[in-house]
Amino acid sequence: MRDIYPENPAGTSDAMGANKDLTGHKLLLVVPWELPAGYFENLHKKFPGLKVQHSHWDTWKETTLPPDISDEDWKSVTILLTGPKFPTIEAAPKLQLVQLQSAGANYVLDNPLFKDTKIAFCTANGVHGPPISEWVICTFLAAQHNIPRFLDNMREGKWERSWDDSDTLDAVSQRVGILGYGSIGRQVARLATAMGMEVYAYTNRPRPTPESRRDNSYYEPGLGDPEGVLPSKWFSGTKPEEVDEFLSSGLDLLVVAVPLTPLTRGMLGAAQFKLLAAKKTYVSNIGRGPVIVTDDLITALNEGWVRGAALDVTDPEPLPRDHPLWRTKNVIVTPHVSGNSHNYNTRLLTILGINLQRLSEEKEFMNHVSRKRGY
Amino acid sequence: MRDIYPENPAGTSDAMGANKDLTGHKLLLVVPWELPAGYFENLHKKFPGLKVQHSHWDTWKETTLPPDISDEDWKSVTILLTGPKFPTIEAAPKLQLVQLQSAGANYVLDNPLFKDTKIAFCTANGVHGPPISEWVICTFLAAQHNIPRFLDNMREGKWERSWDDSDTLDAVSQRVGILGYGSIGRQVARLATAMGMEVYAYTNRPRPTPESRRDNSYYEPGLGDPEGVLPSKWFSGTKPEEVDEFLSSGLDLLVVAVPLTPLTRGMLGAAQFKLLAAKKTYVSNIGRGPVIVTDDLITALNEGWVRGAALDVTDPEPLPRDHPLWRTKNVIVTPHVSGNSHNYNTRLLTILGINLQRLSEEKEFMNHVSRKRGY
Repeated sequence: MRDIYPENPAGTSDAMGANKDLTGHKLLLVVPWELPAGYFENLHKKFPGLKVQHSHWDTWKETTLPPDISDEDWKSVTILLTGPKFPTIEAAPKLQLVQLQSAGANYVLDNPLFKDTKIAFCTANGVHGPPISEWVICTFLAAQHNIPRFLDNMREGKWERSWDDSDTLDAVSQRVGILGYGSIGRQVARLATAMGMEVYAYTNRPRPTPESRRDNSYYEPGLGDPEGVLPSKWFSGTKPEEVDEFLSSGLDLLVVAVPLTPLTRGMLGAAQFKLLAAKKTYVSNIGRGPVIVTDDLITALNEGWVRGAALDVTDPEPLPRDHPLWRTKNVIVTPHVSGNSHNYNTRLLTILGINLQRLSEEKEFMNHVSRKRGY
Repeated sequence: MRDIYPENPAGTSDAMGANKDLTGHKLLLVVPWELPAGYFENLHKKFPGLKVQHSHWDTWKETTLPPDISDEDWKSVTILLTGPKFPTIEAAPKLQLVQLQSAGANYVLDNPLFKDTKIAFCTANGVHGPPISEWVICTFLAAQHNIPRFLDNMREGKWERSWDDSDTLDAVSQRVGILGYGSIGRQVARLATAMGMEVYAYTNRPRPTPESRRDNSYYEPGLGDPEGVLPSKWFSGTKPEEVDEFLSSGLDLLVVAVPLTPLTRGMLGAAQFKLLAAKKTYVSNIGRGPVIVTDDLITALNEGWVRGAALDVTDPEPLPRDHPLWRTKNVIVTPHVSGNSHNYNTRLLTILGINLQRLSEEKEFMNHVSRKRGY
């Protein structure tokens, strides 16, 4: 543990109201990596009253809280950057803001620190938009341009050129349907639009007005579709027949970007893949594996109901070595890596910085987890 | 050969001036594929005076002109859609416009029909923008996201997840340098911009003004960068030191999109790849193989001067089975297929349609080959 800046002498530990300098606040960063050069200096310049501590501790791998943070240290923490390990309410009585390191918040929902307090929990939602949208577009284009076949041919030094233009589909005028139009889906939409594709969006709640189409989570400047202006058609609902209507809308690419909930578990099975057969929709799953009934997808691929599938998430996961999905035709499987990015930590710190700013201005936090909705 | 529409009785065969109905004109389409449903009807509706013939003949594979077109037929042809086979000046004395099926025109430069006449030759420039830009972005993203490694792991059913975020580079804030900012490069720029990349452009002639940055070749509506507004920096020149300055500008991705000319042959060799070592630039070649010195690229890949390379064109081509390039690390080789697209013919007919319209309005043709520049 390092005390980066001593407590501001002008501040008092009970001056907990919002204030420009964040006087009286203490930020504890529990992350297993070094902060970028100049990070602490810039933070101090911006918020001279903010005390900062850093514990180099991996809350995803370790089973306990960081041992180098004393009981005394916890007592004055008002802002915490952490993974899935939390102090008790009693141990951190001044906590106001918890910045999570993940886009999802499922693991906090049953924690008393979340359930029984009014502490603001904020996710890192938006941090995954760029890498996962790139993964979606890359795997889709790879399939459309026969890249896996050419990579196979490379092993044998085989220059096998097809002269049949019709076996390569470029994306112009193709239609992508995005099931779950959040921060990832909206960056997929931006890329798809740049390729000349048409975008259809699906959300659980209806989005009839411009205001309702807006998304307030984090976006890299200029990226995504925070205003919700890219889709030419919006679908919504939670009933199977509403999903089926969307799946019947002539999609060339279906991007599955919904979280796993009781409503989404198994929502794509044989009946749905048959609906996709009309256009032989390519299926891309970057949500969660169990949203798709794996055996039914294998059937759909083998029967040619769909032209192919790219799966970064599977059911089961990890996919066992002898699972037939590995060798099903026209499938690309990667081991839940689409969200990996060397920019992850930088983006996470940007979101934290935005929330520190909003705390200092008494504004609503970014990515604030709703206690009612659970995300 | 089929006479699609008889000669318009109102027209006369020597009424060769521009006119709204194209009265007196005869279009001969020499293509080995069926025209889309309704094509002839729509053409007739638009240009009631235009006579149309279609010969189902592959001028790329065959060594002669189509045998079903008689000497008499040729005499009245004013507009010809063809590949690399041409009539003599004497055989087609009324020819005014030749619409080529390829983006390049190198094979017409020595033909008397081009050299010794004022017949307008127009290329299909722009037809390749979407598929080739998709190929460039797909292979670059595949490398950045380790897709070839994951495809390898699929063969063994190996779910091997790296927890090290830093081995996946997303494209945000990365810089692409486009060597040859034409119709392909400009659609690469559009996709790169949508991913959050910075675009640097290189052209042989300087482009100091908005007007000079414009490109008048064919673009799908809304795609590419016809106005030349996407690059944040422009480079130009034909001297090696000017190219070297561009290569030293901190590029993450270099897209080679120049044609093969005496000036571009071997322009990228060991010295240039050493300049790229500062950022370990990824090299993507969709121009022509001999622009790159193959042995030097192999060295650059083996030594890690560049992070990888995607090559749709090689030197030699086809690449022989035992060539070391096939097995050089971090390389993706495809057999000159990046321009393939099921939309090729539709786009070609769109360009022809634009040029028919311009003929009828006496406007300058699209993709008109300059007799001075040769493209």
